Amino acid sequence: MKINQFAYVPTSHDKIVQELADIHFLTSRTKKMADPVMLYRQLLLKFFIEKQSLATRVQKVSNLMATPKLNAYEYTTNSDSVTKLAFYNVGLQLLGFEVGLDFELTDPFKAMKEYRIPAAIVDDTLNRNQVIDAWYKLLNTRTKFGQTLIDYLASQGYYHQFFGTDDLKRPLIFNGKSQAVFDTSKLIHDVVYVEAPLDNDHDGKRDLLKAEIIRPADTENGLKVPIVFTESPYDQGTNDKQADALTHDVNQEKITRKQPNNLTYDDIKVDYDNSNLPAPRQVKATSKVAEESFVKTWTYALNDYFLARGFAVVYSSGVGTKDSDGVRTTGTPDETLSATAIIEWLHGDRTAFTNRNDQVGIKAWWSNGSVGMTGRSYLGTLSTAAAMTGVDGLKTAVVEAGISNYYDYYRENGLVVAPGGFQGEDADVLGELTFSREQSAADYLKIKDTWLDQLKKLTNGQDRTTGSYNSFWDNRNLLKNVNIKADMLLVHGLNDWNVKLSHVYNLRQTLKNENITQKLVLHQGQHEYLNNFRSVDFTDMVNLWLTNKLLDVDNQANKILPDVLVQDNAEPETWTTYKDWGGDANVETISLDNGRLTNLNENHVFSDKLPDDLFKEYIANTKKWQKALFTKTHSKLNKHAIKLVSEPLDHDMTVDGQVKITLRATSSADLGLLSVALVDYGNAHRLTAVPQVLSAQKILTGYHWRKDDLKEFLPEKKETAYKKFTDAHMNMQNRTNNYKSDDLKPGQYYDFTMPFQPTFWRLLKGHQLGIIIYATDMDYTIRSNQDISYTIDLGASKIELPLLPTDDNQQ
Amino acid sequence: MKINQFAYVPTSHDKIVQELADIHFLTSRTKKMADPVMLYRQLLLKFFIEKQSLATRVQKVSNLMATPKLNAYEYTTNSDSVTKLAFYNVGLQLLGFEVGLDFELTDPFKAMKEYRIPAAIVDDTLNRNQVIDAWYKLLNTRTKFGQTLIDYLASQGYYHQFFGTDDLKRPLIFNGKSQAVFDTSKLIHDVVYVEAPLDNDHDGKRDLLKAEIIRPADTENGLKVPIVFTESPYDQGTNDKQADALTHDVNQEKITRKQPNNLTYDDIKVDYDNSNLPAPRQVKATSKVAEESFVKTWTYALNDYFLARGFAVVYSSGVGTKDSDGVRTTGTPDETLSATAIIEWLHGDRTAFTNRNDQVGIKAWWSNGSVGMTGRSYLGTLSTAAAMTGVDGLKTAVVEAGISNYYDYYRENGLVVAPGGFQGEDADVLGELTFSREQSAADYLKIKDTWLDQLKKLTNGQDRTTGSYNSFWDNRNLLKNVNIKADMLLVHGLNDWNVKLSHVYNLRQTLKNENITQKLVLHQGQHEYLNNFRSVDFTDMVNLWLTNKLLDVDNQANKILPDVLVQDNAEPETWTTYKDWGGDANVETISLDNGRLTNLNENHVFSDKLPDDLFKEYIANTKKWQKALFTKTHSKLNKHAIKLVSEPLDHDMTVDGQVKITLRATSSADLGLLSVALVDYGNAHRLTAVPQVLSAQKILTGYHWRKDDLKEFLPEKKETAYKKFTDAHMNMQNRTNNYKSDDLKPGQYYDFTMPFQPTFWRLLKGHQLGIIIYATDMDYTIRSNQDISYTIDLGASKIELPLLPTDDNQQ
Repeated sequence: MKINQFAYVPTSHDKIVQELADIHFLTSRTKKMADPVMLYRQLLLKFFIEKQSLATRVQKVSNLMATPKLNAYEYTTNSDSVTKLAFYNVGLQLLGFEVGLDFELTDPFKAMKEYRIPAAIVDDTLNRNQVIDAWYKLLNTRTKFGQTLIDYLASQGYYHQFFGTDDLKRPLIFNGKSQAVFDTSKLIHDVVYVEAPLDNDHDGKRDLLKAEIIRPADTENGLKVPIVFTESPYDQGTNDKQADALTHDVNQEKITRKQPNNLTYDDIKVDYDNSNLPAPRQVKATSKVAEESFVKTWTYALNDYFLARGFAVVYSSGVGTKDSDGVRTTGTPDETLSATAIIEWLHGDRTAFTNRNDQVGIKAWWSNGSVGMTGRSYLGTLSTAAAMTGVDGLKTAVVEAGISNYYDYYRENGLVVAPGGFQGEDADVLGELTFSREQSAADYLKIKDTWLDQLKKLTNGQDRTTGSYNSFWDNRNLLKNVNIKADMLLVHGLNDWNVKLSHVYNLRQTLKNENITQKLVLHQGQHEYLNNFRSVDFTDMVNLWLTNKLLDVDNQANKILPDVLVQDNAEPETWTTYKDWGGDANVETISLDNGRLTNLNENHVFSDKLPDDLFKEYIANTKKWQKALFTKTHSKLNKHAIKLVSEPLDHDMTVDGQVKITLRATSSADLGLLSVALVDYGNAHRLTAVPQVLSAQKILTGYHWRKDDLKEFLPEKKETAYKKFTDAHMNMQNRTNNYKSDDLKPGQYYDFTMPFQPTFWRLLKGHQLGIIIYATDMDYTIRSNQDISYTIDLGASKIELPLLPTDDNQQ
Repeated sequence: MKINQFAYVPTSHDKIVQELADIHFLTSRTKKMADPVMLYRQLLLKFFIEKQSLATRVQKVSNLMATPKLNAYEYTTNSDSVTKLAFYNVGLQLLGFEVGLDFELTDPFKAMKEYRIPAAIVDDTLNRNQVIDAWYKLLNTRTKFGQTLIDYLASQGYYHQFFGTDDLKRPLIFNGKSQAVFDTSKLIHDVVYVEAPLDNDHDGKRDLLKAEIIRPADTENGLKVPIVFTESPYDQGTNDKQADALTHDVNQEKITRKQPNNLTYDDIKVDYDNSNLPAPRQVKATSKVAEESFVKTWTYALNDYFLARGFAVVYSSGVGTKDSDGVRTTGTPDETLSATAIIEWLHGDRTAFTNRNDQVGIKAWWSNGSVGMTGRSYLGTLSTAAAMTGVDGLKTAVVEAGISNYYDYYRENGLVVAPGGFQGEDADVLGELTFSREQSAADYLKIKDTWLDQLKKLTNGQDRTTGSYNSFWDNRNLLKNVNIKADMLLVHGLNDWNVKLSHVYNLRQTLKNENITQKLVLHQGQHEYLNNFRSVDFTDMVNLWLTNKLLDVDNQANKILPDVLVQDNAEPETWTTYKDWGGDANVETISLDNGRLTNLNENHVFSDKLPDDLFKEYIANTKKWQKALFTKTHSKLNKHAIKLVSEPLDHDMTVDGQVKITLRATSSADLGLLSVALVDYGNAHRLTAVPQVLSAQKILTGYHWRKDDLKEFLPEKKETAYKKFTDAHMNMQNRTNNYKSDDLKPGQYYDFTMPFQPTFWRLLKGHQLGIIIYATDMDYTIRSNQDISYTIDLGASKIELPLLPTDDNQQ
């Protein structure tokens, strides 16, 4: 168990006194108290909500042990000083740690060191100022259940006891972070229809987009609040069955020879055309009051957390979703404009109506004009897309596992390559999945023909036959036109094989040229949210960030949050800060017939064609295929892959960034594909990429408000012998780039340079690096089982490994 | 998908009109409307919360299709009648079914038949009374997401729109069930300390027990409310690590020869002694206001549902839990009294204090005196235990997977037999697990020595050496002293191998002699709650039940709820009502060398001793052992078991109740054990015993209130070849009963009659019944791997199968 914190703001004693007074832990009376013991007792009694009787609170203080003999109440009535030992014995219990189980009263510091809980004080005895400082630090320390102690206290009603009084600032900032001082039982739920600068269903009217707003009741009394905005195409429902039915059968598709051409980027480049827009609707009247309300099923827990802290939350789903106009386009600027239209309305720059028919305008009069976007996957993608437009009002986006280029989501180097776990999915399938207008029967009747046309366009445009980058994909490349003003907090899982690492890597590289602040968090999960983990204070980091960006509080967020924060793959619950990802690595180039690599099967030729029964077995269960491919001694694929393995490493080696491989290779046919995987060989209890629940419903984000499970990536119970940590795929006719089709002559050698998915991976001393070269990837590529064999000239092939310099790159 | 309903109350037209007026669907104006079409339009518009504008509501009605051509708004403005087709087309959409996906507008009745949704009306066109009746039925029909439509509407704010007015009854009964008309944002949370008639830590003071109360704000204005009470020893925290450390190692324990004796029940019978109680504390003052409040992490979703419906909810944990006095006893009357003391306080018969020290009394002045208990497993056990005392105020208990005799939980016929999944657990381990006083450091310091003594008593008393029933267990037999007044709703999973079926079966048999109403629900789960399933309206059934029992509403609950409701194991989502369980079965007796049974390995002798490596392999993974034991053709255990298999059945056969087997057998030693499993052989997509999430967070139990996942036991994706559906175990020295040790001479034949776990299991036509006879059960018994062989005289052995008569027993 490790309680890491990256969002704590070092604070001066004077400011501490002011902040503790703001949250009522110090009063005019206790501020003057000279006796540290008496002051300490008052702080402890205040910890247990004052609307409870003194007897009750004394009982609760008496339940805590201060020393092996004295309980905390006895201690503060009998001692003449506050020792560091007593302070932290009690402190650990307040943080939820159990005596005898998590720590011993004789030495709390041992446990604190193990759990990474810093003590504020070095002296053995605390004077009154040190009691104040240490108390402040304790309130800002995370509990055993992953929340700061002040957040836990808020969930127990600490702030709620002051709700009736005028004596509570709103918003209230404590250690740079917005506090849970807003009454979530009085949230207001409004629906409005924003008129977007779009007519993507070509009905001659601008598209109205439904937006759902949740805002604090305080806005009714004049408070202007910032907005956390999530654009989720899934939010109004999904067409799961229809999308399943559209999913392509990768076992029937073939790798097809492409006619060689000399396409240049200009041949396929598209400029988004949004001209010929219908005129906006006339605003016939205005209203301050919404006509429609809503109740949500899914909400993002992180957004709910901010609702208790004085942020409004807005959800919208965009063109083609239920109760909105238009059709889905799977990633074109139409979807980006769906998001920016909402932001423009929140910023006062666009019209919304109270309903779809009466043209009664309604303004976001309760907004302070500052918007931050949140969300994962498609939601994060839309945050990135919106940020890239430079839309006014969008101050930041917290992008979790977002796509930065749709081509890289469904294709790779001229090949159809699926997102992990979604073989056969493509842009058309995702369009159908999110076209929730279909769920509204009368509305669907009106749009059905338009939609079926659009679906055909998606299927044709995505072009599964060639897999090449084309105008369709160029229209879905978010990195193409950059006009960004928002600061970016990027979050991605190092085991995310759905939205792969190239998305966040390429986005980050692009943003390096821009005049914004960007931060990056890389965790060990797959495609996961990160807001409820024990080992990292992600929620607090986002709070510090949004409090800075949306409330303009000078809390040093840019300085305090690490530029790059990476969770280690080998040691559980370990997070390290870095200045950069990949940029400071030393590149080591190794020839593939280097003596340090063993060719396990001593082959340089392999055939892609599997016996029919084996092929069927692997289709039915690709885990068997993975096992045969990656296990060093497994023989079933020995003639179908080249397996190169390094000597055991004599020290830890961390791959930092994007590995590249250059293969000199031939195909026996006039078409072909190459795949390469890098594998970490060595028995280890690797981390689960899917988070495990540590404590159900233990995170309380406000007083009688949303609960969440505490989670963590824990070590697997059983050791595993290997793990693939990155891979690369290429159509051999795309050795130049992903849009030009090269010729490929059977038996002729060419050089193929392939970048791997970027990574940050530590191979432990004694482990071995594996380089596995193969063709069809059962998990990702078309499975054609064509009769092609490949030859690799290993001596003319090389790998370029970016390695983290030892011990000198930590921030 | 099947939407079964068992809690609908048939209602006359006059009562329907009254009830619809009560919930404001009919107004003085609409009551008079003669035109069915106009009336229907008004009902549809009212469906979409009236605080929203008319334009918004018209839009929402217009989104529904009434016929393949007309939307519902067009239909009600253009038609001169309400057809059954239009009514149910719209009705299905209101219920959440999608046009084109779930049903077709040309024939909604086909889907309704498939989903088991009854139409209220047979005529093709509805007159105004039929519109009213059909609307009422529709509101009481369950949606695609498992709630009644009126409950869904409540979650959307339907009742909330009347909260400000005086025009809403509280409680409000609709179709016999309490409605969600209470404001959950204003719930009051009180803590009190009930003085129990106990001093089980022998400190000379009666034990104070913490009770946590959640009650509607309306109680402050004089409303008296009924109480849903859950007694959960887990609720204040559990000592997981400490309990793990205490868990017994079943691989080191032996089956031990017991000295033959002639014990009679009188020798081991105990009468609970609660004399020498200290005097009650003096009540020095009284208060109406609690001093302490609380915030919960875990709550039972079913209880939360009732909070929105005007029931108070009380949680308490009993002796030995955090903030209470005493020590845990794992199932003695001390724990029962912990629960009944709370009920007595709720009924006005016992004292509670506002805190632990000041002796200020506080009454449950807001209680109507009627209490119903809920909860699963240990919680359900305590409900049963409390009910058996006849305590005043306890009107009913909804017992999910409760224990009825602790001996049957940890032992079987003189053998140590674990609860499934908890090998090595015993009464001492459960005691340690729930002794949450340990988590309060200062409190634990006071009680530690007492607790360690108590723990020793548990370990000694449970006696893992003999496994016999003794005074320790007699003190933990809930079926021994019966004085019940509460009506009982029993719920159990037919795949529950933790709290096995004998518990609910024996309880039900005992209750048959009592003057109460009892109902039984048997589902296909393991150890599961049943309140969030799509295929059964369990929550509505409990609502009907508690509204009857605790609010004294004459809603015919006793008549309407089936006596026995059983989920079928072979057909998904299928529930059938019966008059009895086991009582109406025809017993078929079969000799074990009957020609209808094939002895697969043609043996009648088997050895229990496994080769060491195989034994270790099975310890590491008991699934491998199960596979070897139950697979018909598997050979590794051929010499370690006798496998008898019937011919394929020529018709479905349902085992209904408790099978018995009599084996004439010898042991090669002077000790031994026998195990028998009954197996359903036949390839089938069997149901998952762990529920799958169908729709996350889709159940909304109130307006902006608790959300729950919709679940179901779905068919497994892959076929399986067999399933064990019941078993039995016996120590051969306990052939007479479970407390007397019989002699056992090596090589001498004796008759051993063993009852199986009761069941309700349908073996399909073509399946085969398997009878597997073995000794050590890796999943349940001590694993001693002793060198003993067993001989069975199959010709002198027989099985007695209680079979459900075909087609004549449904209620």
